[in-house]
Amino acid sequence: MADQFPFVQGGVVAAQGFKAAGEHLGIRKNRSKRDVALIVSDTLCSAACCYTRNLVQGAPIAVTRAHVANGHARAIICNSGNANTCNANGVEIAEGMSALVAQHTGVAAEDVIVASTGVIGQEMTLDPFINGMASLAAALRPDGGHDAAEAIMTTDTVAKEVAVTFTLGGKPCQMGGISKGSGMIHPNMATMLCFVTTDAAVSPACLQEALSDVVKDTFNMLSIDGDTSTNDMISVLANGAAGNPEITARGADFDTFKAALYQVCAKLCRMMAKDGEGATKLLTCTVTGAKDKATAKLAAKSVICSSLLKAAIFGSDANWGRVLCALGYSGAELDVSKIDVQFVSRVGIIPVCTAGSGIPFSEEAAKKVLSEDEIDVAVQLNSGSESAIAWGCDLTYDYVKINGDYRT
Amino acid sequence: MADQFPFVQGGVVAAQGFKAAGEHLGIRKNRSKRDVALIVSDTLCSAACCYTRNLVQGAPIAVTRAHVANGHARAIICNSGNANTCNANGVEIAEGMSALVAQHTGVAAEDVIVASTGVIGQEMTLDPFINGMASLAAALRPDGGHDAAEAIMTTDTVAKEVAVTFTLGGKPCQMGGISKGSGMIHPNMATMLCFVTTDAAVSPACLQEALSDVVKDTFNMLSIDGDTSTNDMISVLANGAAGNPEITARGADFDTFKAALYQVCAKLCRMMAKDGEGATKLLTCTVTGAKDKATAKLAAKSVICSSLLKAAIFGSDANWGRVLCALGYSGAELDVSKIDVQFVSRVGIIPVCTAGSGIPFSEEAAKKVLSEDEIDVAVQLNSGSESAIAWGCDLTYDYVKINGDYRT
Repeated sequence: MADQFPFVQGGVVAAQGFKAAGEHLGIRKNRSKRDVALIVSDTLCSAACCYTRNLVQGAPIAVTRAHVANGHARAIICNSGNANTCNANGVEIAEGMSALVAQHTGVAAEDVIVASTGVIGQEMTLDPFINGMASLAAALRPDGGHDAAEAIMTTDTVAKEVAVTFTLGGKPCQMGGISKGSGMIHPNMATMLCFVTTDAAVSPACLQEALSDVVKDTFNMLSIDGDTSTNDMISVLANGAAGNPEITARGADFDTFKAALYQVCAKLCRMMAKDGEGATKLLTCTVTGAKDKATAKLAAKSVICSSLLKAAIFGSDANWGRVLCALGYSGAELDVSKIDVQFVSRVGIIPVCTAGSGIPFSEEAAKKVLSEDEIDVAVQLNSGSESAIAWGCDLTYDYVKINGDYRT
Repeated sequence: MADQFPFVQGGVVAAQGFKAAGEHLGIRKNRSKRDVALIVSDTLCSAACCYTRNLVQGAPIAVTRAHVANGHARAIICNSGNANTCNANGVEIAEGMSALVAQHTGVAAEDVIVASTGVIGQEMTLDPFINGMASLAAALRPDGGHDAAEAIMTTDTVAKEVAVTFTLGGKPCQMGGISKGSGMIHPNMATMLCFVTTDAAVSPACLQEALSDVVKDTFNMLSIDGDTSTNDMISVLANGAAGNPEITARGADFDTFKAALYQVCAKLCRMMAKDGEGATKLLTCTVTGAKDKATAKLAAKSVICSSLLKAAIFGSDANWGRVLCALGYSGAELDVSKIDVQFVSRVGIIPVCTAGSGIPFSEEAAKKVLSEDEIDVAVQLNSGSESAIAWGCDLTYDYVKINGDYRT
């Protein structure tokens, strides 16, 4: 899908009226690693969130749910290095983080979205926040988005930020976001952290509706390792600083806003998949010709979740039987005898399967196509007109290395 | 669970009236690797099978379904090195294999169970069978079980065979089996090949009932990599040579027979999990205190399927938060605040979580417990009296290595 809106600089503070910071407050031992991000709007915002569906949920999730129940928020605080989950004092810590933000920024504590990411079940204290919140608040800047993006990273190797510009009611609007991966990712929704801000004016109900719709086609189509995490969420703040007529119902403006949100989320998904733990390649699956959307999604997601295919992609091995296998156990109703499969990358297209059976292809050419760092498995079901895309990555030695000794 | 029946030698030909062979017929290039197994009963047997639920199914599955539709069979032929799946001429090949068995053994072609395992979507010819079936049939011996076990191996590093003795109606009976893994294993049923023979007399209906029950608690609780394969099945042949009164209904004899079948299948599952692709450790999860059996099974299976936990076990890292995380997204209804977790091995027990929260433990002692080659994650749900066990393995560099370049 071609991108509809121009990308702009500024990430999570590309929108007017937002400031951000990311500093080292001491959650992590490594002093050179920023570990707390703070994002603040000049004014109260419409707020919408989607949360992990894991039954085990971090204390920050509970506190955030309560804080955004009225559809409004003004700030986001997020630490990396400790998930604040399965701790006896988790809620106390999350509420303490909110109170400290309130004390140092003037935002009401109940307007703060709280998030934590890192190891589950580790003791956590409020001390780093007590000692460091003043300097974090002092560091808030209209160009602090990149620092914030860095502060929420765990095993991520690159910071993930994106922003777009679009027009509503003749007013230029901006929307930007940051997100972190890069393991324990198999959203159902959501399984990472993502914070989006916009200066568009949109009602809380419309913001939630747009977010819930977009999440289904973006973060819920992303998988790194099949593990749905306990802590993670996507939050969107809309402060209305762009001055457009507030979006309060479906219509042309709602559609434009939702398209911008889709573009921001899809881009972040792509960045997260490519930076999946240990990944050397982005692996996407584009399913076309499905009888309905649900079939297309089930099929696409099953393919990018297959450990066997992911390992084959790492090895640049055109083992297309594993694609058929993953389609077969996807749970989707498929007519296997109609399925065509191609491996696609920047340097070429290799058809490997037609009507459910293998066809001859050059192993040498396939190796060349699969040696690129962005691989699409194009599946044509020849049974209808619906399509879907899912994002994932290859399975590598480094995934095992990172996760064999993450905690100690 | 303690083993109820004594183990005996002989594997898949421990039962009276069965012969087996395994030879190199040339499916594989490596001449030192046996690649076709043949198992034949002296007389017609009751036969039962369970098959993969993958929508993409190998041609041998279709042919076998037709051959055992009447509840009887007398021989099993299985090749490794080519899955005979997604080939235009697959059914022709599978029927040709049956016909050649008939020609050289006197078993009717429609009484032959056919199986293939290996790469999907590779061209296959009947030539190796045409040229080699005479010598394979000539090699049939009452002690040929180990050769057959070797012939069905793919990426397995050890042959898997087991046999037990038990008594029905005062008659000593034997039951033995062979199976192969060791990747693309996530049964639903079944996702590997397993062949069991017994000299007990049991009607086809009772044999199928016992098998379907046992599979739910054994092979369907086994996962190596979450990939449900296209080809695989478990077949049981019962020839009645032991002379017991035929089992034709539920009752004490049926229960004894089913217990023996459980023991054979559970032992083979354990062996397969421990020899999972690249595995260095057997990983089991024993869930107790569940409100019902379905909850216990969902919870146990989710834990042993977690890539993150599997990698942590490889690294001997007591990252129990990943256990809680996997329980939380298992789909089971759980009261997280009641969950206790312990890591258990031959050298000790490390409690790590009580009532859903972490408790202090010695990292050194945990490392020692987790450095063993058989690790159980003991999960007490404290919500009832049902239990379940699931079998898996750690996720290692070698899994990636094996599957990054399996085909070429």
